Amino acid sequence: MAFVTIRDIAQEAGVSVTAVSQILHDKGRFSQQTRELVRQTAERLGYVPDQRARAMRSAATQTVGLLVPDLRNPYFADMVSSMEEELYRRGFTTLIGSYGERVDRQDAFLRSLLGQRIDGAIVVPQGGLSQGLQLLIERKLPLVFVDRLVPGAENVPFVVSDPKPGLEEALERLAGLGHRAIGFVSHSALGSFSVNERAKAFSAAIRERIPGGTGVVVDCNSTVESRSSALERLNNAGVTAIICAYSPDAITMLGLLQERGIAIGDAVSLISFDDIEAFRLMVPQVSVISQQADAMGRLGVEMLIRRIASGTEVAAHTHYVPTVLHMRGSCGVAVV
Amino acid sequence: MAFVTIRDIAQEAGVSVTAVSQILHDKGRFSQQTRELVRQTAERLGYVPDQRARAMRSAATQTVGLLVPDLRNPYFADMVSSMEEELYRRGFTTLIGSYGERVDRQDAFLRSLLGQRIDGAIVVPQGGLSQGLQLLIERKLPLVFVDRLVPGAENVPFVVSDPKPGLEEALERLAGLGHRAIGFVSHSALGSFSVNERAKAFSAAIRERIPGGTGVVVDCNSTVESRSSALERLNNAGVTAIICAYSPDAITMLGLLQERGIAIGDAVSLISFDDIEAFRLMVPQVSVISQQADAMGRLGVEMLIRRIASGTEVAAHTHYVPTVLHMRGSCGVAVV
Repeated sequence: MAFVTIRDIAQEAGVSVTAVSQILHDKGRFSQQTRELVRQTAERLGYVPDQRARAMRSAATQTVGLLVPDLRNPYFADMVSSMEEELYRRGFTTLIGSYGERVDRQDAFLRSLLGQRIDGAIVVPQGGLSQGLQLLIERKLPLVFVDRLVPGAENVPFVVSDPKPGLEEALERLAGLGHRAIGFVSHSALGSFSVNERAKAFSAAIRERIPGGTGVVVDCNSTVESRSSALERLNNAGVTAIICAYSPDAITMLGLLQERGIAIGDAVSLISFDDIEAFRLMVPQVSVISQQADAMGRLGVEMLIRRIASGTEVAAHTHYVPTVLHMRGSCGVAVV
Repeated sequence: MAFVTIRDIAQEAGVSVTAVSQILHDKGRFSQQTRELVRQTAERLGYVPDQRARAMRSAATQTVGLLVPDLRNPYFADMVSSMEEELYRRGFTTLIGSYGERVDRQDAFLRSLLGQRIDGAIVVPQGGLSQGLQLLIERKLPLVFVDRLVPGAENVPFVVSDPKPGLEEALERLAGLGHRAIGFVSHSALGSFSVNERAKAFSAAIRERIPGGTGVVVDCNSTVESRSSALERLNNAGVTAIICAYSPDAITMLGLLQERGIAIGDAVSLISFDDIEAFRLMVPQVSVISQQADAMGRLGVEMLIRRIASGTEVAAHTHYVPTVLHMRGSCGVAVV
């Protein structure tokens, strides 16, 4: 044995690595018997304090947990893939989970993750401060939230997309094409912080960028019926252009419009959030407000690795990644 | 506390659950001091031996590892999602990894997985019997391969798609539309068992289903140049219909054909393997030979759970899931 690490002591004494580390630093609550066992084992093996730093490095698992709402949503598949690539490049293995936008599955994964050997976690959370998220925070696991903020968890670093720049550019371009009445499709049932932020940003931006224009906000959920009814309401309100906050809604609505023979980019213009491959493959190609999933993913990794190094007591920061508009064939001159 | 488990003893004594379990069964190599600590703690907490079965049940991790080549490929994102749903329904948590079709990343994930607390793994492997895969097999971890067979690992249960039924139906339907010269795009650089099987099945099926017809097999890799050159060769060979073995190739080729103004479903017909959402969203919709990713995923889970229950010494079986043709607008009457 070249040098003795706390892992060696833990193995020899049959106690956990955490227990050894805490006892040697006079921390934690252990019986006198356990403390003596660890100290005697450390002495017997010839453990010396100046190896502490090296021992702590080698005790790191170099593994990170990564949880996203839904891998069938290409936006998250993209984000997860770029995070995994970046983590691999930096020597980490990634354990991914997804939870079908269901809080019970999210919390089951998080509880299970805490039983694994990981150094930290990056989470795209659902809804509020659930039991599973609370557990992660209480255990002081290095943690970063991406894409969606959790109210009440402001001490966790957070990477979020800023919907404003992309939305403002979209409204300016639509105004330039003669659009005055713009529809916005929100999806409040998702309980997603970032999707809700987009609706707020839309209402503010339309006042600024299309003075005297009309913004019509409708809400839908994940059923075809609800999306069809939202389209109907926008049509009745006389909008000539639609912005979707959540890309799965846009995909269904484009299908519904094509079924009804309504020409996209002509009779109606459409822009969706999320720069997913499907939107580039469709004819006409669909204009998007890109959240730059790759950039967000890489930034999330950067922040987590810093958090692992600095500990969870350091103040948390929120980082905004600006959205960017990609204008494509699904937008045309307004037909009034 | 309703009853005392080995987990409670481990926590109280500051030792690992494994150490408690081994010491209480007179196994393992621990110091006399550790043994006494565990036994005294067990006695103090009121642990009784007839709780052994219950304690061992609670020691099962109910966690499964799941490794796929690429989450950006919607075929694998679909498959992983249906496996994860099925595992959750049966009370398991899933730790997912992906490896960008790179053997070094595959093996890094597998090595890391062996350091985690898992009951088994489902793997869509790349290439041959790599070091990482060998390690998994040697450790006798319950294991199922899905989608791609590993030569030399025939003692691992295996779920594979049978390309024959879908391919034969595709050739019959194309023959009915007047196609006599059919191109087939393979992708041997992937080193994928199932993708290679499709090329073999094509050559056999064309002899049977289009007697006197011509089958032209070209190979490409993941660059646009190579895909463009494969299209060129098929065009020069005078084919009127193309079948792609690997859906990312089809996506690029459809883009190239549209760029060149070649009408899909008219000047050329195209069918791709993999029933992914993008193919249903494109205009015209793309015909596919579906491997029924959902059915394969659910069967893989079923087989793994049986393997976990029965152990890895039981003989392994291979299960074939038949492919199914979905004919859509990308196929039309042959233009000769």
